[in-house]
Amino acid sequence: MSELRQDPTTREWVILAPERAKRPQQGPKKKRGADIPAWDEKCPFCLGNEGRTPPEVLRLPLSKRTSKWSVRVVPNLYSALNPDGENNKGMSGDFFRHREGIGVHEVIIETPSHNTPMALMPYEHVEEVLAAYQQRYNALKANRQLKFITIFKNHGWSSGTSLIHPHSQLVATPVIATFYNRKFDVAHDYYVDVASCLYCDLLAEELERGERIVAETKHFAVFHPYASHVPYETWIIPKEHRASFGLSPPTHLAELAMVLRDSLLCLYRGLNNPDFNLMIDTSTTEDEKGPFYHWHIRILPRLSTVAGFEMGSGIHITTAMPEDTAARMKQIANSCAGGECISFKQEG
Amino acid sequence: MSELRQDPTTREWVILAPERAKRPQQGPKKKRGADIPAWDEKCPFCLGNEGRTPPEVLRLPLSKRTSKWSVRVVPNLYSALNPDGENNKGMSGDFFRHREGIGVHEVIIETPSHNTPMALMPYEHVEEVLAAYQQRYNALKANRQLKFITIFKNHGWSSGTSLIHPHSQLVATPVIATFYNRKFDVAHDYYVDVASCLYCDLLAEELERGERIVAETKHFAVFHPYASHVPYETWIIPKEHRASFGLSPPTHLAELAMVLRDSLLCLYRGLNNPDFNLMIDTSTTEDEKGPFYHWHIRILPRLSTVAGFEMGSGIHITTAMPEDTAARMKQIANSCAGGECISFKQEG
Repeated sequence: MSELRQDPTTREWVILAPERAKRPQQGPKKKRGADIPAWDEKCPFCLGNEGRTPPEVLRLPLSKRTSKWSVRVVPNLYSALNPDGENNKGMSGDFFRHREGIGVHEVIIETPSHNTPMALMPYEHVEEVLAAYQQRYNALKANRQLKFITIFKNHGWSSGTSLIHPHSQLVATPVIATFYNRKFDVAHDYYVDVASCLYCDLLAEELERGERIVAETKHFAVFHPYASHVPYETWIIPKEHRASFGLSPPTHLAELAMVLRDSLLCLYRGLNNPDFNLMIDTSTTEDEKGPFYHWHIRILPRLSTVAGFEMGSGIHITTAMPEDTAARMKQIANSCAGGECISFKQEG
Repeated sequence: MSELRQDPTTREWVILAPERAKRPQQGPKKKRGADIPAWDEKCPFCLGNEGRTPPEVLRLPLSKRTSKWSVRVVPNLYSALNPDGENNKGMSGDFFRHREGIGVHEVIIETPSHNTPMALMPYEHVEEVLAAYQQRYNALKANRQLKFITIFKNHGWSSGTSLIHPHSQLVATPVIATFYNRKFDVAHDYYVDVASCLYCDLLAEELERGERIVAETKHFAVFHPYASHVPYETWIIPKEHRASFGLSPPTHLAELAMVLRDSLLCLYRGLNNPDFNLMIDTSTTEDEKGPFYHWHIRILPRLSTVAGFEMGSGIHITTAMPEDTAARMKQIANSCAGGECISFKQEG
């Protein structure tokens, strides 16, 4: 039974989920690339082991001619949240605020293959994964108790993952995380000030300067942000203003899949398959059509440990300049063989 | 040459310090306890190797009869900040905000002994370390360009430390970290609302409930917070209202050393010498006498990796209840031999 508690000193919500301590950990053996088998009989996400996950909430078929799947979405067996709880607000004049830990925690199993990371998937397969993300996002936002839906991916042991098999996660909560509230506040203030979207202006600024742009396609741009929190932090942002990933046109997913796969492939090549976290930063479910926020993807390579100063102060110390790392990514894309990194070689 | 840059989407400041990439890394060999020698000829912090650090800014002698030292403070050779820069605000109507990376980054070498972690130091030695913290804090706050001073300690490889030898760090910056700004804002709002200090009220609440209190002495309390961010998160808070660690009475340092040492010793015993981060959360240098903030120490054991969801959303998932972990710490303290954990056996 999990519980949401608010830190009275920061107003951050914390999920207390002692059940999560029981989840299996495959790490931290440093298995990489060729060392990992294509199929592992013990892996609950591998083909043939479908019975070892809770019943799926979404299955994308491999093709119309087969019953095999390309992507499955299942409830997380070690869920941090309980989908059936009452949304008890627990605000009864108490010094401490808590709520029952209601919410949804799902796993997107990205591929039947145990050893194919997203960086090495064909574009079409990445598109399927993105379609699964979007379908689950849009299905869950119909539940008005769920105010915020985070989709993220942990790759490699130091990213905090507990299973090798390529997967992403979705967490839908009745509260909005402090970090996102802050992003929404900053964007809203900017909108009130300047009457335009902070992210549209940021993107225009980055495109004009060019020095941190890694790639530009018709509808997307890839860049290393001005104040990168870690070396090789990578943002993928749609050029059209849109607050919510849920409302991104499905016709853009193929192009998004290309820039995402190519971003991950260049990191894979340039940094030797680094551990990373990937997050889709999107609006609240109630503000999907707002003028001030603008969804985007953040990729944070985990090349070093988040240390006391960062944890304590929130000031990150980044040991590489984004102008230099963006240039390096462009070099890597240029040295790719003919058919690879197509999106990075397009003109915007 | 380092640079402070503000993330336009969160207003967080990031320190870009490519020079830091050159610092030596002893990790991640998993050396522990008895495996570590008392002296390492290659260690710049060991006795006899004083010439391998920059000249010290503070030395506490071992006793009046010897030239040997107990604690040294030196500038960080791989400083993230430059003490001599101009405090150029760089706010010239540009979309992106930056400042020169001025500031101070120091290392507190806690002991001449290569293998004596703070958990195993005598109380008197921990008091010396705390005295060094406070002396440097108070010396640096005289520089009015430095608005905020963070003192922290990383223990163990997964905490982000790069050297085994027991040490802490001090970073003084011309900007205030977003995380602390948030804490100050929340405390200030509370003060405006309720006309009392949030932390004084929090402590009264915790003492009344008792279930998360680990220890109470005359001037300090140790507890596991209601909304712990990680299992065994530990706070040490002074009972008397005081915004700044810099103004904590030197006569209280001996007692603080006892509760700090005993907190670390119980974690060392109960969790087998866990990696951890320790932070002193104090007011800005300009608000040391304010009525709304209240300094305290946070200890965050690093029992698991900060994963994508936490990094992405700021919502931490904690896999143990603070009521249970506080009870466990009390058990450990009670099973300590006679002369140990004295402070945990006192009555408040």
